[in-house]
Amino acid sequence: MRVLIIGGGGFIGQKIAKALAEKGTLNGKQITHLELADITAPPTVVAPFGVSHHAVDISDKAKCDALFQCQPDVVFHLAAIVSGQAEAEFDTGMRVNLAGTLNVFEAARALGTKPVVVFSSSCAVYGGEIPDQIEDWTTLNPQTSYGAQKAIGELLCTDYSRKGFIDGRAPRLPTITIRPGKPNAAASSFMSSIFREPLQGQTAVCPVQPDYAVWYLSPRKVVENLIKCAEIPAEKFGENRAFALPGRVATIGEMVEAMRKVAGDEPVNRIKWEPDPVILSIVMGWRPHINPQKALALGLTTDDSFEDNVRYFLEDDIQVPAT
Amino acid sequence: MRVLIIGGGGFIGQKIAKALAEKGTLNGKQITHLELADITAPPTVVAPFGVSHHAVDISDKAKCDALFQCQPDVVFHLAAIVSGQAEAEFDTGMRVNLAGTLNVFEAARALGTKPVVVFSSSCAVYGGEIPDQIEDWTTLNPQTSYGAQKAIGELLCTDYSRKGFIDGRAPRLPTITIRPGKPNAAASSFMSSIFREPLQGQTAVCPVQPDYAVWYLSPRKVVENLIKCAEIPAEKFGENRAFALPGRVATIGEMVEAMRKVAGDEPVNRIKWEPDPVILSIVMGWRPHINPQKALALGLTTDDSFEDNVRYFLEDDIQVPAT
Ligand SMILES: NC(=O)c1ccc[n+]([C@@H]2O[C@H](COP(=O)([O-])OP(=O)(O)OC[C@H]3O[C@@H](n4cnc5c(N)ncnc54)[C@H](O)[C@@H]3O)[C@@H](O)[C@H]2O)c1
Ligand SMILES: NC(=O)c1ccc[n+]([C@@H]2O[C@H](COP(=O)([O-])OP(=O)(O)OC[C@H]3O[C@@H](n4cnc5c(N)ncnc54)[C@H](O)[C@@H]3O)[C@@H](O)[C@H]2O)c1
Repeated sequence: MRVLIIGGGGFIGQKIAKALAEKGTLNGKQITHLELADITAPPTVVAPFGVSHHAVDISDKAKCDALFQCQPDVVFHLAAIVSGQAEAEFDTGMRVNLAGTLNVFEAARALGTKPVVVFSSSCAVYGGEIPDQIEDWTTLNPQTSYGAQKAIGELLCTDYSRKGFIDGRAPRLPTITIRPGKPNAAASSFMSSIFREPLQGQTAVCPVQPDYAVWYLSPRKVVENLIKCAEIPAEKFGENRAFALPGRVATIGEMVEAMRKVAGDEPVNRIKWEPDPVILSIVMGWRPHINPQKALALGLTTDDSFEDNVRYFLEDDIQVPAT
Repeated sequence: MRVLIIGGGGFIGQKIAKALAEKGTLNGKQITHLELADITAPPTVVAPFGVSHHAVDISDKAKCDALFQCQPDVVFHLAAIVSGQAEAEFDTGMRVNLAGTLNVFEAARALGTKPVVVFSSSCAVYGGEIPDQIEDWTTLNPQTSYGAQKAIGELLCTDYSRKGFIDGRAPRLPTITIRPGKPNAAASSFMSSIFREPLQGQTAVCPVQPDYAVWYLSPRKVVENLIKCAEIPAEKFGENRAFALPGRVATIGEMVEAMRKVAGDEPVNRIKWEPDPVILSIVMGWRPHINPQKALALGLTTDDSFEDNVRYFLEDDIQVPAT
């Protein structure tokens, strides 16, 4: 069993790599080799199997084809230009998120072995002219270029699977919080930084009002769910390979109160509330009320409370001890 | 006002060209020039304005860019590899329907004038895991590559419009019947030929059962609606540029009885009923129960009865007098 993680240097890619290294198997089969690919060669992980590192820009078709000479049985395709950057740099987003994803699916198809491909879509595909309550059959009318490019990736994932070219799975990720490390170019970056920075003793700016509602999932749960997505038998996905992952809905204000319960008043007092019109223009188009029936039926799961997300961060990811 | 019709040699393209030649104006403005483009130079139309003819493969980006040197104010993008062929030749469909459509949108964007682009999507975008009754907010889970490629074109049309690159409109066409001429590679080809051939004195094969239900529209009405789509003010389309055109639902059996009412028993007796598994595998995935609320609110309309469709064919398109 050879596993390839594209975007393997990223936040979720590194966490999946570590989880696979601990688990040693995927879908009941021994992992013999892990290939980590990213735009620059990703950091390695300590593992009971061989680990290779590839610097590959997936928007370069020839390089993407060459990467697949490693003949993966399972591919996690996580590489993406995130929402804020894809909105600011339209052509970059199209090149990586659309053409790059097509290159990945084509390279996987060319193997002729119908590899499992887990494509990380996003709840940013929702928006626009839809009812408030989102069901598995609600249309995708994204109001960002990132969302449009992810929705296109989903359609390709389902069609390539229907044709028998790949065995694709396209879970729509909720906002993952609390994300470790530094703020990034995702418009949702604040949904981690207003917890992470205060828990690490720094101040952070919240660009939305406390009543802004978020559809979220913890890093632990997203890794667990993405690995499960690679293990579920193909036939269980039916005619649509894309579906919302389970998540929870809470307002930013409720999440802040959850942090207070776990970590006290001090971190909460480090949040400054300063509405930001650019971020608002993107995130106000997202929708938090999602009913992930299909994913629940597939056995995928969510967090129990945002208190847990705060605890997971303190256990797994905190980098500077809170003062 | 310069108008460009891509796919201008096709069935609908030629009919739009003739309708514009008769009308002389579009959106209240004098048409000064009509550009007809297709894979081979399209037949001309007699018109009160200049008509140019272009042989352009839209999947060739440089040629597609060069075509747009004609600086159109309004573009009808009708060029496509139809359903049956796109299913049999996956790569051809991807090249023309996906890459070609992207080339058209990019060339329109490069003008910098935000031209109106009417992109003919299709009700083949519907299918898969959706409720029987289709609303404007029902998801697109197409079960053909043609449908997937059209759904991707819609997402691009909406996003390019949202970004202000083009002023796109992406109506989903019902099955257009009764289509004149010869059978084509569309899986829906029989939905015209079982009426057209008998009305022209020939036999025809019906590959589905009489209870198969179709979402249909006449050639006259689709031309009228597509022209209206170019004339409706941009702001009326809201956040989604894609929507179902109005149509009617009837079973093949009911449509055959309508033909009997207009043209007697003889044509009906020329239909042979022979189920075809390949065609069934495609068309059984389509959905006929569509509620086109948005299109109706935009002032788009449908036929009054299939009897009218038969009459329109006899008035506009019949090529060999029925015996
Ligand atoms: N974290 C979230 O909240 C969230 C939510 C929804 C969806 N997602 C999706 O999950 C995936 C992983 O997210 P993440 O949070 O780990 O993001 P991340 O930015 O940490 O990781 C993405 C990785 O993709 C790489 N990449 C970008 N362009 C590339 C290219 N051209 N070639 C090769 N690699 C390239 C980046 O270098 C980065 O390491 C992404 O597809 C993202 O869109 C994440
Ligand atoms: N007629 C229907 O029932 C129906 C239903 C739904 C959607 N549509 C859509 O409406 C549009 C017009 O349909 P039609 O019935 O007139 O089809 P048609 O096949 O008669 O016309 C399509 C035209 O596109 C041209 N074309 C194909 N590839 C091309 C390329 N690479 N470059 C340039 N031109 C190319 C063809 O030569 C043809 O003339 C199509 O986009 C079709 O998908 C039609």
